[in-house]
Amino acid sequence: MSDARPLAVAVAGLGTVGAEVVRLVRAAADLHAQRCGRRLEVVGVSARDRTKDRGVDLGGIDWYDDAVTLARSAPAEVIIELIGGSDGVARAVCHEAIAQGRHLVTANKALLAHHGAELVWAAEAKGVALGYEAAVAGGIPAVKGMREGLAANRLDRVVGILNGTCNFILTGMRESGRDFATELATAKARGYAEADPTMDIDGIDAAHKLVLLAQLAFNGAIAFDSVHVEGIRGLATTDIGYAEELGYRIKLLGIAERMGEGVCLRVHPCMVPRDLPISTVEGVLNAVVAYGHEVGEVMMVGQGAGAGPTASAVVADLLDIARGCRVPPLGAPVQCLAPLTHVPIADRQGAYYLRLMVLDRPGVIAEIAAHMRDQGISLEGFIQRARSPDVAVPVVMTTHETTESAMQAALGEIAALPVVLEAPVLIRIETLNHQ
Amino acid sequence: MSDARPLAVAVAGLGTVGAEVVRLVRAAADLHAQRCGRRLEVVGVSARDRTKDRGVDLGGIDWYDDAVTLARSAPAEVIIELIGGSDGVARAVCHEAIAQGRHLVTANKALLAHHGAELVWAAEAKGVALGYEAAVAGGIPAVKGMREGLAANRLDRVVGILNGTCNFILTGMRESGRDFATELATAKARGYAEADPTMDIDGIDAAHKLVLLAQLAFNGAIAFDSVHVEGIRGLATTDIGYAEELGYRIKLLGIAERMGEGVCLRVHPCMVPRDLPISTVEGVLNAVVAYGHEVGEVMMVGQGAGAGPTASAVVADLLDIARGCRVPPLGAPVQCLAPLTHVPIADRQGAYYLRLMVLDRPGVIAEIAAHMRDQGISLEGFIQRARSPDVAVPVVMTTHETTESAMQAALGEIAALPVVLEAPVLIRIETLNHQ
Repeated sequence: MSDARPLAVAVAGLGTVGAEVVRLVRAAADLHAQRCGRRLEVVGVSARDRTKDRGVDLGGIDWYDDAVTLARSAPAEVIIELIGGSDGVARAVCHEAIAQGRHLVTANKALLAHHGAELVWAAEAKGVALGYEAAVAGGIPAVKGMREGLAANRLDRVVGILNGTCNFILTGMRESGRDFATELATAKARGYAEADPTMDIDGIDAAHKLVLLAQLAFNGAIAFDSVHVEGIRGLATTDIGYAEELGYRIKLLGIAERMGEGVCLRVHPCMVPRDLPISTVEGVLNAVVAYGHEVGEVMMVGQGAGAGPTASAVVADLLDIARGCRVPPLGAPVQCLAPLTHVPIADRQGAYYLRLMVLDRPGVIAEIAAHMRDQGISLEGFIQRARSPDVAVPVVMTTHETTESAMQAALGEIAALPVVLEAPVLIRIETLNHQ
Repeated sequence: MSDARPLAVAVAGLGTVGAEVVRLVRAAADLHAQRCGRRLEVVGVSARDRTKDRGVDLGGIDWYDDAVTLARSAPAEVIIELIGGSDGVARAVCHEAIAQGRHLVTANKALLAHHGAELVWAAEAKGVALGYEAAVAGGIPAVKGMREGLAANRLDRVVGILNGTCNFILTGMRESGRDFATELATAKARGYAEADPTMDIDGIDAAHKLVLLAQLAFNGAIAFDSVHVEGIRGLATTDIGYAEELGYRIKLLGIAERMGEGVCLRVHPCMVPRDLPISTVEGVLNAVVAYGHEVGEVMMVGQGAGAGPTASAVVADLLDIARGCRVPPLGAPVQCLAPLTHVPIADRQGAYYLRLMVLDRPGVIAEIAAHMRDQGISLEGFIQRARSPDVAVPVVMTTHETTESAMQAALGEIAALPVVLEAPVLIRIETLNHQ
C-alpha cells in the first residue's frame, strides 16, 4: 500500500445512515484498505443526543455536540454530512468543511438541488472533493456511472425512477387494487414512508435527484424552480387499471432531456409501455436510464434508499478520495459549465391519456372530440364501457403525439363543459423512444 | 484546465471498433477536454491494410505497419489494443506497451481471461494503467461500477447476460418459435454473429467476461479453465416453450458466486423466473447483476457490443487516465489478491428442469422417479401431455433443490434406460435469490 496514513473522516449526523456509515467503515476496514491503499478511520461524530443507543460502537471516536464545530475542528480530512435539509445546519456544515480545506461527502439531495452551485464553486476553489453519490438513487452508482462511465458521450436524456416510496405505492396499488391512501399507510408501516410523506409523494424528492442527474448529464447548472413537478397523491386505482388494459404501467418518472438548444426537466406520473425494462422495476427499487450519443441506452437498477445502500455509496466516495481520484463534481470544472436554457413543459411533445367522468348523453363524445380537433389533437383510441343515463361514467381517450400546450388548451375547454362532472385526469404517455 | 498538454494515444487495430475510437476521439475532442482537463489526440495507428477505406479520416496520424512497433515507438502515453485474440500480436503489443512505460487500454477479453494476471503484474510493476472497461459488457460501465461504485461492499455474486449474440438468438427463438439454426442465420444476417460463431454460441466469450467480472468481485485471480462452460447450440424450441409454460425464460447466464471458502464460475443456459428484471433483458442487450453485502443487488443493462458502445468504454478509460485517476485493475493491488479456491459445478445446489423423450409405456414415470428418489432428489412437478404408444413422447420434470452431483448421477442412470430414446435435456433453474 502506497500510503500507510489513514484517511480520517468525521460524520455529522447519526441517523440510520450515519450510524451505518460508522459501522461499515469499522467492520470492513481491511477490505477497504486493500482496495484503496489506506485505512479509513472515523475520528469524530456529531448528533443531537449523545445518550441515544444507535446500535453502533462509538468507542474511541470524538463526540461533538455541534456539527459546525465538528466540521471546523475535528482532525479529519473528510467531513460526511448526513444531517439533511436544504438549509440550516447542513448547509453551514458543508460550507465550514470546505472553508477548512476538508473534503466533503454528503447524501443531501435537497441541499445540493437548491445550493449545489455555491458548494461546487467553493469546493473547486479550495481544491477539495465534493462527493454526493449517496444523494442520487441510493446504492446505485449513478453519479459515477454517468460522470465517469459514460464520460465519452454527449448525454441527451436521463430518465429515472427516483423515489422508492412512490414506486412502492404504485406497485402496491397495481398488484392489490387498493387505493393510494391504503398503500401509503402500508408504506409507512413498512418504514418506506415518513410520518410526513410530502417530499416523497409530491415528487419533490425525485425532482431534487433529477436536478443532480441533469446537471451531470448536461454539464450545466439547473435551477430547482425550473423543474415541473407533479406527485402521485391524486392517482386513482381506476387509472392504474386502464393503464394495464392499454398495455402501460404507471410510474413516477423524472425526465430530463435536451430539447432544441435547451433542456426540459419534469417529474410526473407517466404511462410507460409495460414491456420496457424500466417498467419491470418494482417496489422500492430505483432506476436510472441514461441515453448517450455513442453508447445508446444504459440502465442501472438498485436500492434507492435505506441505511445499507446509502452507506455503500458514501463509502464509495470515501474510497475515491482515499485513492486520490478527483473528478469535478459536475463532470467538468464549474467555469466550463454551459448555461442551459430552460424549456417549459408546455413544449413537451408526446401522447396523452385522458379520463373524463361524463354524463352519458348523445353527442358527448363528439363534443369532446371536437375540442381536441380544434387544437389539432388526433385521437388514438377511446374506451367507454359503462352506460348509465344521468350518472357520471368514465370515458378514456388516448391521443397521438401532440404538444402539451395544445393538450392543456383542449383540456381547459373540455373541463368547462357542463357534461364533464369531475376534474379530468391527464397522464402523459412516455414511450421513451430515442429521438 | 489544469494540464494543457494533450494526452497522446495510439490505436493498434482498425476494425470497426478501432475506427470508431479514432472518430469519436476526434469528433468529441472539445467535450472530452472539458471533462478531463486535457485534449485527447490520436498520434498513431496500425492495421494490416493501409489502403482500406475505414470511413474515418486518418489525416495527420502516423501509420505503423507493425503493431508492436507502434507500441514501442509511437509518441503516445497510451496504447489502445483492439486487435483481438488471446495470444499472438495482441499479447505482444500489450507487453510491449507496458514495457515501454505506456498506459494500456484494451477491449480484449480473451487475452485478459487467459493472460490477465501476467499483464496486471507487469502494469502494476511499471506503474501504468491497464484499462479494460470495453472488454466486459461493451458500453455498460460494469468494471467501473463494480470496482469503484460498489467498492465498499464484499461482493458475493455476479450474474450476467454477457453475450448479445446468444441473447438475440434466444429472444428470437422464443418470440418466433423458430429453431436455433434459423435464428443463428438471422443473427449473422443482422451482423450480430460472426461467420464462425463458435466463441459466442458455445459460451466461451461469455466465460471470458465472467472471469474478468469474478476477479473484480472477489479480488483474486481465476484460471479460465476453472469455468464450467456450456453454450446454446443444443437448445430446442420445445424447451423454450416449456420454459414459458412453467413461468421461466431461458437465458445464457454467466454466474460467479462465493460458495463456502471458494468460488464457483459457470456459463450455461438457465431457466430464470420470467418476472425477474434480468429476464426482461432481451435481444442484443447485456446485463450485469452484482450482489453486495451492503448495497444488495445492483443491475446494469446496455449494449454489450458494437462499435459505438465499445468505443464509449475505451474512451471512458482514456478520460480516467487523462484525469490521473488510477485504480488497481483488479480492484486491489495484485500482491493483496486472495488465492481463490475453485468450487466445481458438481457442488451447485439448485433446482433442475429435465426433458426426456420416452416410450409411453406403463411404469415409465415410476421407473424414472425411482432413480431420482434413489439420489435423494424430490420432484416438484411433471408434464406429460402427448400420448402415443411406441413413439417417443416428451416428459418434462422439475425438481426441488438438490445438488448437481446427485442430479448428474440420476441422469446417468436415466439416460441408460431402454425406454429413454434421446439424450436427456437438463437445464438448471436459477431463481437468483439471495443466499
